[in-house]
Amino acid sequence: MDDVFQHTIKVLFQHCDPAGIVFYPRYFEMVNQTVEEWHEVGLGHSFAQMHLERGHGVPTVSIGAEFSAPSKMGDVLTWRLHVTKLGRTSAHLHVEAHCAEELRMTATPVLVSVDMSTGRPVPWPDAMRSRITTFLQSKQL
Amino acid sequence: MDDVFQHTIKVLFQHCDPAGIVFYPRYFEMVNQTVEEWHEVGLGHSFAQMHLERGHGVPTVSIGAEFSAPSKMGDVLTWRLHVTKLGRTSAHLHVEAHCAEELRMTATPVLVSVDMSTGRPVPWPDAMRSRITTFLQSKQL
Amino acid sequence: MDDVFQHTIKVLFQHCDPAGIVFYPRYFEMVNQTVEEWHEVGLGHSFAQMHLERGHGVPTVSIGAEFSAPSKMGDVLTWRLHVTKLGRTSAHLHVEAHCAEELRMTATPVLVSVDMSTGRPVPWPDAMRSRITTFLQSKQL
Amino acid sequence: MDDVFQHTIKVLFQHCDPAGIVFYPRYFEMVNQTVEEWHEVGLGHSFAQMHLERGHGVPTVSIGAEFSAPSKMGDVLTWRLHVTKLGRTSAHLHVEAHCAEELRMTATPVLVSVDMSTGRPVPWPDAMRSRITTFLQSKQL
Repeated sequence: MDDVFQHTIKVLFQHCDPAGIVFYPRYFEMVNQTVEEWHEVGLGHSFAQMHLERGHGVPTVSIGAEFSAPSKMGDVLTWRLHVTKLGRTSAHLHVEAHCAEELRMTATPVLVSVDMSTGRPVPWPDAMRSRITTFLQSKQL
Repeated sequence: MDDVFQHTIKVLFQHCDPAGIVFYPRYFEMVNQTVEEWHEVGLGHSFAQMHLERGHGVPTVSIGAEFSAPSKMGDVLTWRLHVTKLGRTSAHLHVEAHCAEELRMTATPVLVSVDMSTGRPVPWPDAMRSRITTFLQSKQL
Repeated sequence: MDDVFQHTIKVLFQHCDPAGIVFYPRYFEMVNQTVEEWHEVGLGHSFAQMHLERGHGVPTVSIGAEFSAPSKMGDVLTWRLHVTKLGRTSAHLHVEAHCAEELRMTATPVLVSVDMSTGRPVPWPDAMRSRITTFLQSKQL
Repeated sequence: MDDVFQHTIKVLFQHCDPAGIVFYPRYFEMVNQTVEEWHEVGLGHSFAQMHLERGHGVPTVSIGAEFSAPSKMGDVLTWRLHVTKLGRTSAHLHVEAHCAEELRMTATPVLVSVDMSTGRPVPWPDAMRSRITTFLQSKQL
Protein backbone atom coordinates (compact mmCIF):
# COMPACT_ATOMS: atom_id res chain seq x y z
CA MET A 1 0.00 0.00 0.00
CA ASP A 2 0.91 3.59 -0.56
CA ASP A 3 3.79 2.89 -2.91
CA VAL A 4 4.67 5.62 -5.37
CA PHE A 5 6.61 4.87 -8.53
CA GLN A 6 9.28 7.44 -9.30
CA HIS A 7 11.84 7.99 -12.06
CA THR A 8 13.48 10.92 -13.83
CA ILE A 9 13.56 12.14 -17.43
CA LYS A 10 15.84 14.93 -18.64
CA VAL A 11 14.31 17.47 -20.99
CA LEU A 12 16.14 17.19 -24.32
CA PHE A 13 16.45 19.49 -27.32
CA GLN A 14 13.99 17.24 -29.17
CA HIS A 15 11.25 17.84 -26.59
CA CYS A 16 11.31 21.62 -27.06
CA ASP A 17 9.42 23.90 -29.43
CA PRO A 18 10.25 27.23 -31.07
CA ALA A 19 9.31 28.94 -27.78
CA GLY A 20 12.17 26.98 -26.17
CA ILE A 21 9.91 25.00 -23.85
CA VAL A 22 8.55 21.45 -23.84
CA PHE A 23 5.94 20.98 -26.60
CA TYR A 24 2.97 19.51 -24.74
CA PRO A 25 2.51 16.32 -26.84
CA ARG A 26 6.07 15.44 -25.76
CA TYR A 27 4.87 15.54 -22.13
CA PHE A 28 2.39 12.81 -23.05
CA GLU A 29 5.24 10.74 -24.46
CA MET A 30 6.91 11.16 -21.06
CA VAL A 31 3.68 10.18 -19.27
CA ASN A 32 3.53 7.06 -21.45
CA GLN A 33 7.19 6.32 -20.69
CA THR A 34 6.42 6.70 -16.97
CA VAL A 35 3.49 4.26 -17.23
CA GLU A 36 5.73 1.86 -19.21
CA GLU A 37 8.59 2.01 -16.66
CA TRP A 38 6.09 1.56 -13.85
CA HIS A 39 4.80 -1.61 -15.49
CA GLU A 40 8.31 -2.99 -15.84
CA VAL A 41 9.92 -1.84 -12.60
CA GLY A 42 6.94 -1.28 -10.31
CA LEU A 43 4.65 -4.10 -11.41
CA GLY A 44 7.19 -6.56 -12.78
CA HIS A 45 5.41 -6.84 -16.14
CA SER A 46 7.35 -5.29 -19.02
CA PHE A 47 5.47 -3.85 -21.99
CA ALA A 48 7.56 -6.10 -24.25
CA GLN A 49 6.39 -9.28 -22.49
CA MET A 50 2.82 -8.06 -22.16
CA HIS A 51 2.34 -6.88 -25.75
CA LEU A 52 4.56 -9.26 -27.69
CA GLU A 53 4.26 -12.49 -25.70
CA ARG A 54 0.92 -12.32 -23.94
CA GLY A 55 -1.14 -10.14 -26.30
CA HIS A 56 -2.15 -8.01 -23.32
CA GLY A 57 -2.43 -4.27 -23.93
CA VAL A 58 -3.20 -1.34 -21.64
CA PRO A 59 -4.46 1.48 -23.89
CA THR A 60 -5.23 4.89 -22.43
CA VAL A 61 -8.94 5.63 -22.83
CA SER A 62 -8.96 9.11 -21.36
CA ILE A 63 -6.53 11.58 -19.87
CA GLY A 64 -6.60 15.01 -18.31
CA ALA A 65 -3.58 17.24 -17.97
CA GLU A 66 -2.56 20.58 -16.49
CA PHE A 67 0.65 22.32 -17.46
CA SER A 68 1.50 24.38 -14.37
CA ALA A 69 4.84 25.84 -15.39
CA PRO A 70 7.03 25.54 -18.50
CA SER A 71 10.04 23.18 -18.68
CA LYS A 72 13.24 24.07 -20.53
CA MET A 73 16.04 22.11 -22.17
CA GLY A 74 18.26 20.52 -19.53
CA ASP A 75 15.63 20.46 -16.76
CA VAL A 76 15.57 17.13 -14.92
CA LEU A 77 11.97 16.15 -14.28
CA THR A 78 11.04 13.82 -11.45
CA TRP A 79 7.95 11.83 -12.39
CA ARG A 80 5.76 10.23 -9.72
CA LEU A 81 2.88 7.85 -10.34
CA HIS A 82 0.26 6.32 -8.08
CA VAL A 83 -3.16 4.70 -8.57
CA THR A 84 -6.29 6.53 -7.48
CA LYS A 85 -8.90 3.91 -8.42
CA LEU A 86 -8.68 0.31 -9.50
CA GLY A 87 -11.60 -1.28 -11.38
CA ARG A 88 -12.11 -4.80 -12.68
CA THR A 89 -10.61 -3.90 -16.08
CA SER A 90 -9.44 -0.32 -15.56
CA ALA A 91 -6.98 1.73 -13.51
CA HIS A 92 -7.07 5.47 -12.83
CA LEU A 93 -3.59 6.94 -12.43
CA HIS A 94 -2.23 10.19 -11.07
CA VAL A 95 1.07 11.27 -12.59
CA GLU A 96 3.08 14.36 -11.67
CA ALA A 97 6.29 15.94 -12.92
CA HIS A 98 8.36 18.25 -10.73
CA CYS A 99 11.62 20.08 -11.42
CA ALA A 100 13.22 20.51 -8.01
CA GLU A 101 10.24 21.72 -5.93
CA GLU A 102 8.26 23.21 -8.78
CA LEU A 103 5.25 21.33 -10.17
CA ARG A 104 5.41 21.31 -13.96
CA MET A 105 2.56 19.06 -15.06
CA THR A 106 -0.11 16.71 -13.75
CA ALA A 107 -1.81 13.99 -15.75
CA THR A 108 -4.64 11.63 -14.94
CA PRO A 109 -4.62 8.76 -17.44
CA VAL A 110 -7.21 5.99 -17.29
CA LEU A 111 -5.91 2.65 -18.56
CA VAL A 112 -7.97 -0.31 -19.65
CA SER A 113 -6.70 -3.88 -19.65
CA VAL A 114 -7.44 -5.36 -23.09
CA ASP A 115 -6.97 -8.59 -24.99
CA MET A 116 -5.10 -7.36 -28.05
CA SER A 117 -6.52 -10.11 -30.29
CA THR A 118 -10.11 -8.93 -29.72
CA GLY A 119 -9.56 -5.34 -28.53
CA ARG A 120 -11.96 -6.14 -25.67
CA PRO A 121 -11.49 -5.30 -21.98
CA VAL A 122 -10.36 -8.22 -19.82
CA PRO A 123 -9.98 -8.34 -16.03
CA TRP A 124 -6.52 -7.56 -14.70
CA PRO A 125 -4.61 -10.83 -14.25
CA ASP A 126 -4.37 -11.62 -10.51
CA ALA A 127 -0.59 -11.23 -10.41
CA MET A 128 -0.82 -7.73 -11.89
CA ARG A 129 -3.81 -6.75 -9.81
CA SER A 130 -2.11 -7.47 -6.51
CA ARG A 131 0.91 -5.43 -7.57
CA ILE A 132 -1.21 -2.52 -8.81
CA THR A 133 -3.01 -2.50 -5.47
CA THR A 134 0.20 -1.60 -3.67
CA PHE A 135 0.21 1.72 -5.59
CA LEU A 136 -3.35 2.63 -4.55
CA GLN A 137 -3.50 5.86 -2.55
CA SER A 138 -6.42 6.80 -0.40
CA LYS A 139 -5.57 10.46 -0.80
CA GLN A 140 -3.72 13.03 -2.90
CA LEU A 141 0.06 13.11 -2.48
CA MET B 1 -21.45 33.15 -34.73
CA ASP B 2 -21.64 29.39 -34.64
CA ASP B 3 -18.78 28.82 -37.06
CA VAL B 4 -16.99 25.50 -36.81
CA PHE B 5 -13.48 25.04 -38.16
CA GLN B 6 -12.99 21.77 -40.00
CA HIS B 7 -10.13 20.02 -41.77
CA THR B 8 -8.93 16.47 -42.35
CA ILE B 9 -5.79 14.52 -41.41
CA LYS B 10 -5.01 11.05 -42.75
CA VAL B 11 -3.64 8.54 -40.24
CA LEU B 12 -0.12 7.63 -41.36
CA PHE B 13 2.21 4.75 -40.55
CA GLN B 14 4.17 7.12 -38.30
CA HIS B 15 1.14 7.80 -36.08
CA CYS B 16 0.62 4.12 -35.23
CA ASP B 17 2.02 1.96 -32.46
CA PRO B 18 2.85 -1.75 -32.21
CA ALA B 19 -0.85 -2.44 -31.64
CA GLY B 20 -1.46 -0.97 -35.12
CA ILE B 21 -3.52 1.97 -33.85
CA VAL B 22 -2.82 5.67 -33.31
CA PHE B 23 -0.47 6.19 -30.36
CA TYR B 24 -2.32 8.73 -28.21
CA PRO B 25 0.45 11.40 -28.01
CA ARG B 26 0.18 11.57 -31.83
CA TYR B 27 -3.49 12.54 -31.42
CA PHE B 28 -2.29 15.55 -29.43
CA GLU B 29 0.02 16.48 -32.30
CA MET B 30 -3.08 16.36 -34.53
CA VAL B 31 -5.03 18.49 -32.01
CA ASN B 32 -2.17 21.02 -32.07
CA GLN B 33 -2.15 20.94 -35.88
CA THR B 34 -5.91 21.58 -35.84
CA VAL B 35 -5.47 24.56 -33.50
CA GLU B 36 -2.64 25.83 -35.74
CA GLU B 37 -4.68 25.51 -38.96
CA TRP B 38 -7.64 27.17 -37.25
CA HIS B 39 -5.44 30.15 -36.37
CA GLU B 40 -4.22 30.48 -39.95
CA VAL B 41 -7.37 29.67 -41.91
CA GLY B 42 -10.15 30.36 -39.41
CA LEU B 43 -8.72 33.39 -37.59
CA GLY B 44 -6.41 34.77 -40.28
CA HIS B 45 -3.41 34.79 -37.93
CA SER B 46 -0.76 32.21 -38.84
CA PHE B 47 1.43 30.70 -36.12
CA ALA B 48 4.48 31.83 -38.14
CA GLN B 49 3.43 35.50 -38.05
CA MET B 50 2.26 35.33 -34.44
CA HIS B 51 5.30 33.58 -32.99
CA LEU B 52 8.10 34.85 -35.22
CA GLU B 53 6.98 38.39 -36.04
CA ARG B 54 4.75 39.46 -33.17
CA GLY B 55 6.14 37.44 -30.26
CA HIS B 56 2.61 36.31 -29.46
CA GLY B 57 2.19 32.72 -28.24
CA VAL B 58 -0.87 30.62 -27.39
CA PRO B 59 0.38 27.83 -25.13
CA THR B 60 -2.00 25.11 -23.97
CA VAL B 61 -2.37 25.27 -20.18
CA SER B 62 -4.66 22.31 -19.74
CA ILE B 63 -6.36 19.67 -21.82
CA GLY B 64 -8.73 16.79 -21.37
CA ALA B 65 -9.17 13.99 -23.85
CA GLU B 66 -11.28 10.89 -24.43
CA PHE B 67 -10.35 8.21 -26.92
CA SER B 68 -13.67 6.70 -27.93
CA ALA B 69 -12.56 4.26 -30.61
CA PRO B 70 -9.18 3.33 -32.10
CA SER B 71 -7.96 4.72 -35.43
CA LYS B 72 -5.94 2.70 -37.92
CA MET B 73 -3.46 3.48 -40.68
CA GLY B 74 -5.23 4.98 -43.69
CA ASP B 75 -8.25 6.29 -41.75
CA VAL B 76 -9.15 9.82 -42.79
CA LEU B 77 -10.06 11.81 -39.69
CA THR B 78 -12.32 14.85 -39.89
CA TRP B 79 -11.37 17.31 -37.16
CA ARG B 80 -13.84 19.96 -35.97
CA LEU B 81 -13.09 22.81 -33.60
CA HIS B 82 -15.23 25.40 -31.89
CA VAL B 83 -14.88 27.70 -28.88
CA THR B 84 -16.85 27.01 -25.71
CA LYS B 85 -15.66 29.94 -23.58
CA LEU B 86 -13.68 33.06 -24.34
CA GLY B 87 -11.95 34.90 -21.50
CA ARG B 88 -9.88 38.09 -21.48
CA THR B 89 -6.64 36.14 -22.02
CA SER B 90 -7.87 32.55 -22.49
CA ALA B 91 -9.97 30.43 -24.82
CA HIS B 92 -11.60 27.06 -24.08
CA LEU B 93 -11.82 24.88 -27.16
CA HIS B 94 -13.75 21.75 -28.07
CA VAL B 95 -12.07 19.56 -30.68
CA GLU B 96 -13.44 16.32 -32.12
CA ALA B 97 -12.18 13.75 -34.60
CA HIS B 98 -14.54 11.50 -36.54
CA CYS B 99 -13.87 8.81 -39.13
CA ALA B 100 -16.98 8.71 -41.27
CA GLU B 101 -19.73 8.77 -38.61
CA GLU B 102 -17.69 7.27 -35.79
CA LEU B 103 -16.33 9.52 -33.03
CA ARG B 104 -12.69 8.69 -32.41
CA MET B 105 -11.50 11.31 -29.93
CA THR B 106 -12.55 14.49 -28.16
CA ALA B 107 -10.19 17.05 -26.68
CA THR B 108 -10.79 20.20 -24.66
CA PRO B 109 -7.67 22.34 -24.76
CA VAL B 110 -7.49 25.66 -22.91
CA LEU B 111 -5.21 28.20 -24.60
CA VAL B 112 -3.74 31.30 -23.03
CA SER B 113 -2.64 34.35 -25.00
CA VAL B 114 0.91 35.22 -23.87
CA ASP B 115 3.60 37.75 -24.61
CA MET B 116 6.50 35.45 -25.51
CA SER B 117 9.13 37.93 -24.27
CA THR B 118 7.74 37.84 -20.71
CA GLY B 119 5.78 34.59 -20.73
CA ARG B 120 2.87 36.56 -19.19
CA PRO B 121 -0.78 36.41 -20.25
CA VAL B 122 -1.94 39.34 -22.38
CA PRO B 123 -5.47 40.15 -23.56
CA TRP B 124 -6.39 38.82 -26.99
CA PRO B 125 -5.70 41.51 -29.61
CA ASP B 126 -9.03 43.00 -30.78
CA ALA B 127 -8.65 41.70 -34.31
CA MET B 128 -8.16 38.12 -33.05
CA ARG B 129 -10.87 38.41 -30.43
CA SER B 130 -13.56 39.36 -32.91
CA ARG B 131 -12.62 36.42 -35.11
CA ILE B 132 -12.49 33.95 -32.22
CA THR B 133 -15.98 35.11 -31.20
CA THR B 134 -17.42 33.81 -34.46
CA PHE B 135 -16.45 30.28 -33.35
CA LEU B 136 -18.22 30.56 -29.97
CA GLN B 137 -20.97 27.98 -29.55
CA SER B 138 -23.71 28.31 -27.00
CA LYS B 139 -24.12 24.55 -26.89
CA GLN B 140 -22.50 21.23 -27.68
CA LEU B 141 -22.38 20.29 -31.35
CA MET C 1 8.83 6.08 -67.55
CA ASP C 2 10.18 9.23 -66.06
CA ASP C 3 7.29 9.84 -63.71
CA VAL C 4 8.00 11.90 -60.62
CA PHE C 5 5.74 11.70 -57.59
CA GLN C 6 5.05 15.09 -56.00
CA HIS C 7 3.11 16.37 -53.01
CA THR C 8 3.37 19.18 -50.47
CA ILE C 9 3.75 19.32 -46.70
CA LYS C 10 3.47 22.53 -44.68
CA VAL C 11 6.02 23.04 -41.91
CA LEU C 12 4.11 23.10 -38.63
CA PHE C 13 4.99 24.36 -35.13
CA GLN C 14 5.48 20.71 -34.08
CA HIS C 15 8.24 20.19 -36.66
CA CYS C 16 10.40 23.02 -35.31
CA ASP C 17 13.07 23.10 -32.62
CA PRO C 18 14.24 25.78 -30.18
CA ALA C 19 16.27 27.34 -33.03
CA GLY C 20 12.93 27.88 -34.83
CA ILE C 21 13.77 25.57 -37.72
CA VAL C 22 12.76 22.03 -38.68
CA PHE C 23 14.36 19.48 -36.32
CA TYR C 24 16.03 17.02 -38.70
CA PRO C 25 14.37 13.80 -37.45
CA ARG C 26 11.05 15.47 -38.42
CA TYR C 27 12.36 15.71 -42.02
CA PHE C 28 12.68 11.91 -41.97
CA GLU C 29 9.05 11.66 -40.86
CA MET C 30 8.23 13.79 -43.93
CA VAL C 31 10.39 11.54 -46.14
CA ASN C 32 8.50 8.53 -44.79
CA GLN C 33 5.19 10.29 -45.41
CA THR C 34 6.31 11.01 -48.99
CA VAL C 35 7.20 7.34 -49.53
CA GLU C 36 3.84 6.34 -48.01
CA GLU C 37 1.84 8.74 -50.22
CA TRP C 38 3.81 7.58 -53.25
CA HIS C 39 2.82 3.99 -52.51
CA GLU C 40 -0.85 4.90 -52.23
CA VAL C 41 -1.19 7.50 -54.95
CA GLY C 42 1.72 6.73 -57.28
CA LEU C 43 1.81 2.93 -57.06
CA GLY C 44 -1.79 2.23 -56.13
CA HIS C 45 -0.81 0.15 -53.08
CA SER C 46 -1.67 1.81 -49.77
CA PHE C 47 0.46 1.12 -46.70
CA ALA C 48 -2.73 0.08 -44.88
CA GLN C 49 -3.53 -2.65 -47.43
CA MET C 50 0.10 -3.75 -47.75
CA HIS C 51 0.88 -3.96 -44.02
CA LEU C 52 -2.46 -4.95 -42.55
CA GLU C 53 -3.96 -7.15 -45.26
CA ARG C 54 -1.03 -8.57 -47.19
CA GLY C 55 1.72 -8.65 -44.55
CA HIS C 56 4.02 -6.91 -47.00
CA GLY C 57 6.43 -4.34 -45.55
CA VAL C 58 8.94 -1.96 -47.13
CA PRO C 59 11.43 -1.08 -44.39
CA THR C 60 14.18 1.46 -45.06
CA VAL C 61 17.56 -0.26 -44.77
CA SER C 62 19.75 2.76 -45.39
CA ILE C 63 19.38 6.46 -46.05
CA GLY C 64 21.58 9.43 -46.76
CA ALA C 65 20.48 13.03 -46.33
CA GLU C 66 21.74 16.53 -46.88
CA PHE C 67 20.13 19.56 -45.28
CA SER C 68 20.89 22.38 -47.72
CA ALA C 69 19.00 25.24 -46.11
CA PRO C 70 16.82 25.55 -42.99
CA SER C 71 13.00 25.47 -43.14
CA LYS C 72 10.80 27.59 -40.89
CA MET C 73 7.26 27.36 -39.57
CA GLY C 74 4.75 28.06 -42.32
CA ASP C 75 7.05 27.12 -45.21
CA VAL C 76 5.28 24.95 -47.77
CA LEU C 77 7.65 22.22 -48.91
CA THR C 78 7.24 20.53 -52.28
CA TRP C 79 8.47 16.97 -52.09
CA ARG C 80 9.51 15.07 -55.22
CA LEU C 81 10.35 11.39 -55.42
CA HIS C 82 11.72 9.20 -58.18
CA VAL C 83 13.47 5.82 -58.37
CA THR C 84 17.18 5.63 -59.22
CA LYS C 85 17.65 1.86 -59.13
CA LEU C 86 15.26 -1.06 -58.93
CA GLY C 87 16.51 -4.45 -57.71
CA ARG C 88 14.76 -7.78 -57.34
CA THR C 89 13.81 -7.01 -53.72
CA SER C 90 15.03 -3.43 -53.28
CA ALA C 91 14.43 0.10 -54.58
CA HIS C 92 16.75 3.09 -54.37
CA LEU C 93 14.85 6.37 -54.12
CA HIS C 94 15.78 10.00 -54.56
CA VAL C 95 13.65 12.43 -52.56
CA GLU C 96 13.94 16.22 -52.57
CA ALA C 97 12.19 19.04 -50.74
CA HIS C 98 12.06 22.57 -52.14
CA CYS C 99 10.47 25.73 -50.79
CA ALA C 100 9.70 27.83 -53.87
CA GLU C 101 12.96 27.48 -55.84
CA GLU C 102 15.22 26.78 -52.86
CA LEU C 103 16.42 23.24 -52.20
CA ARG C 104 15.97 22.42 -48.52
CA MET C 105 16.86 18.73 -48.23
CA THR C 106 17.72 15.67 -50.26
CA ALA C 107 17.33 12.08 -49.09
CA THR C 108 18.27 8.77 -50.67
CA PRO C 109 16.37 5.99 -48.92
CA VAL C 110 16.82 2.35 -49.92
CA LEU C 111 13.71 0.24 -49.37
CA VAL C 112 13.52 -3.52 -49.20
CA SER C 113 10.41 -5.52 -49.95
CA VAL C 114 9.86 -7.94 -47.02
CA ASP C 115 7.44 -10.59 -45.93
CA MET C 116 6.41 -9.27 -42.51
CA SER C 117 5.76 -12.75 -41.10
CA THR C 118 9.37 -13.82 -41.64
CA GLY C 119 11.14 -10.47 -41.90
CA ARG C 120 12.84 -11.81 -45.07
CA PRO C 121 13.23 -9.99 -48.41
CA VAL C 122 10.79 -11.07 -51.11
CA PRO C 123 10.70 -10.04 -54.77
CA TRP C 124 8.47 -7.10 -55.59
CA PRO C 125 5.05 -8.38 -56.65
CA ASP C 126 4.70 -7.96 -60.44
CA ALA C 127 1.90 -5.42 -60.15
CA MET C 128 4.01 -3.20 -57.91
CA ARG C 129 7.16 -3.71 -59.92
CA SER C 130 5.61 -2.48 -63.16
CA ARG C 131 4.32 0.64 -61.39
CA ILE C 132 7.64 1.32 -59.68
CA THR C 133 9.36 1.08 -63.07
CA THR C 134 7.44 4.09 -64.32
CA PHE C 135 9.24 6.19 -61.69
CA LEU C 136 12.73 5.06 -62.76
CA GLN C 137 14.90 7.92 -63.94
CA SER C 138 17.96 7.42 -66.05
CA LYS C 139 19.43 10.62 -64.74
CA GLN C 140 19.29 13.19 -61.95
CA LEU C 141 16.37 15.58 -62.06
CA MET D 1 42.93 10.80 -27.71
CA ASP D 2 40.88 7.82 -28.69
CA ASP D 3 38.04 8.49 -26.28
CA VAL D 4 34.67 7.04 -27.18
CA PHE D 5 31.48 8.42 -25.69
CA GLN D 6 29.00 5.75 -24.64
CA HIS D 7 25.53 5.68 -23.13
CA THR D 8 22.41 3.50 -23.31
CA ILE D 9 18.83 4.07 -24.42
CA LYS D 10 16.05 1.54 -23.89
CA VAL D 11 13.66 0.99 -26.80
CA LEU D 12 10.21 2.11 -25.65
CA PHE D 13 6.69 1.44 -26.94
CA GLN D 14 6.68 4.97 -28.41
CA HIS D 15 9.70 4.22 -30.62
CA CYS D 16 8.01 1.28 -32.36
CA ASP D 17 5.82 1.09 -35.45
CA PRO D 18 2.99 -1.23 -36.49
CA ALA D 19 5.60 -3.81 -37.51
CA GLY D 20 6.70 -3.85 -33.83
CA ILE D 21 10.18 -2.50 -34.53
CA VAL D 22 11.85 0.89 -34.13
CA PHE D 23 10.50 3.39 -36.69
CA TYR D 24 13.66 4.78 -38.30
CA PRO D 25 13.02 8.51 -37.65
CA ARG D 26 13.03 7.58 -33.94
CA TYR D 27 16.59 6.26 -34.39
CA PHE D 28 17.56 9.76 -35.52
CA GLU D 29 16.02 11.16 -32.33
CA MET D 30 18.28 8.72 -30.45
CA VAL D 31 21.29 9.82 -32.54
CA ASN D 32 20.49 13.43 -31.66
CA GLN D 33 20.12 12.49 -27.98
CA THR D 34 23.52 10.76 -28.16
CA VAL D 35 25.12 13.88 -29.68
CA GLU D 36 23.42 16.00 -26.99
CA GLU D 37 24.60 13.78 -24.11
CA TRP D 38 28.10 13.73 -25.62
CA HIS D 39 28.16 17.53 -25.60
CA GLU D 40 27.09 17.67 -21.96
CA VAL D 41 28.98 14.74 -20.49
CA GLY D 42 31.83 14.22 -22.96
CA LEU D 43 32.60 17.82 -23.91
CA GLY D 44 31.35 19.61 -20.81
CA HIS D 45 29.12 21.95 -22.83
CA SER D 46 25.41 21.32 -22.35
CA PHE D 47 22.99 22.08 -25.17
CA ALA D 48 21.04 24.27 -22.71
CA GLN D 49 24.05 26.51 -22.01
CA MET D 50 25.17 26.53 -25.64
CA HIS D 51 21.81 27.32 -27.21
CA LEU D 52 20.13 29.42 -24.54
CA GLU D 53 23.06 31.31 -22.99
CA ARG D 54 25.70 31.51 -25.68
CA GLY D 55 23.64 31.45 -28.89
CA HIS D 56 25.87 28.68 -30.20
CA GLY D 57 24.18 25.95 -32.25
CA VAL D 58 25.46 22.73 -33.82
CA PRO D 59 22.99 21.84 -36.58
CA THR D 60 23.39 18.60 -38.53
CA VAL D 61 24.09 19.42 -42.18
CA SER D 62 24.23 15.88 -43.50
CA ILE D 63 23.86 12.34 -42.21
CA GLY D 64 24.11 8.83 -43.54
CA ALA D 65 22.61 5.82 -41.82
CA GLU D 66 22.43 2.05 -42.16
CA PHE D 67 19.91 -0.05 -40.32
CA SER D 68 21.60 -3.43 -39.95
CA ALA D 69 19.07 -5.29 -37.86
CA PRO D 70 15.69 -4.37 -36.37
CA SER D 71 15.26 -3.35 -32.70
CA LYS D 72 12.25 -4.33 -30.62
CA MET D 73 10.51 -2.91 -27.57
CA GLY D 74 12.56 -3.50 -24.43
CA ASP D 75 15.91 -3.82 -26.23
CA VAL D 76 18.65 -1.86 -24.46
CA LEU D 77 20.79 -0.13 -27.07
CA THR D 78 24.39 0.85 -26.34
CA TRP D 79 25.30 3.95 -28.31
CA ARG D 80 28.93 4.80 -29.04
CA LEU D 81 30.19 8.03 -30.61
CA HIS D 82 33.58 9.16 -31.82
CA VAL D 83 34.89 11.85 -34.16
CA THR D 84 36.32 10.90 -37.56
CA LYS D 85 37.28 14.36 -38.84
CA LEU D 86 37.46 17.77 -37.21
CA GLY D 87 37.36 20.89 -39.39
CA ARG D 88 37.58 24.56 -38.49
CA THR D 89 33.78 24.85 -38.19
CA SER D 90 32.62 21.25 -38.67
CA ALA D 91 32.88 17.81 -37.07
CA HIS D 92 32.26 14.43 -38.71
CA LEU D 93 30.90 11.88 -36.25
CA HIS D 94 30.53 8.12 -36.27
CA VAL D 95 27.68 6.80 -34.13
CA GLU D 96 26.77 3.14 -33.59
CA ALA D 97 24.04 1.32 -31.70
CA HIS D 98 24.45 -2.27 -30.54
CA CYS D 99 22.12 -4.57 -28.62
CA ALA D 100 24.41 -6.99 -26.81
CA GLU D 101 26.87 -7.93 -29.59
CA GLU D 102 24.56 -7.21 -32.52
CA LEU D 103 25.01 -4.03 -34.55
CA ARG D 104 21.64 -2.36 -35.06
CA MET D 105 22.43 0.95 -36.76
CA THR D 106 25.28 3.19 -37.80
CA ALA D 107 25.02 6.92 -38.44
CA THR D 108 27.51 9.47 -39.71
CA PRO D 109 26.26 12.96 -38.85
CA VAL D 110 28.22 16.06 -39.84
CA LEU D 111 27.76 18.96 -37.43
CA VAL D 112 28.53 22.59 -38.11
CA SER D 113 29.28 25.12 -35.40
CA VAL D 114 27.02 28.15 -35.99
CA ASP D 115 26.29 31.52 -34.46
CA MET D 116 22.53 31.26 -33.91
CA SER D 117 21.98 35.01 -34.33
CA THR D 118 23.33 34.97 -37.90
CA GLY D 119 23.00 31.29 -38.82
CA ARG D 120 26.61 31.46 -40.06
CA PRO D 121 29.38 28.95 -39.36
CA VAL D 122 31.86 30.02 -36.68
CA PRO D 123 35.10 28.29 -35.64
CA TRP D 124 34.77 25.90 -32.72
CA PRO D 125 35.60 27.76 -29.48
CA ASP D 126 39.07 26.66 -28.26
CA ALA D 127 37.71 25.05 -25.11
CA MET D 128 35.32 22.88 -27.13
CA ARG D 129 37.87 22.13 -29.83
CA SER D 130 40.40 20.68 -27.43
CA ARG D 131 37.73 18.46 -25.89
CA ILE D 132 36.39 17.31 -29.26
CA THR D 133 39.97 16.38 -30.27
CA THR D 134 40.10 13.76 -27.52
CA PHE D 135 37.32 11.88 -29.35
CA LEU D 136 39.16 11.83 -32.71
CA GLN D 137 39.89 8.32 -33.93
CA SER D 138 42.49 7.59 -36.54
CA LYS D 139 40.64 4.47 -37.55
CA GLN D 140 37.31 2.67 -37.47
CA LEU D 141 36.36 1.13 -34.14
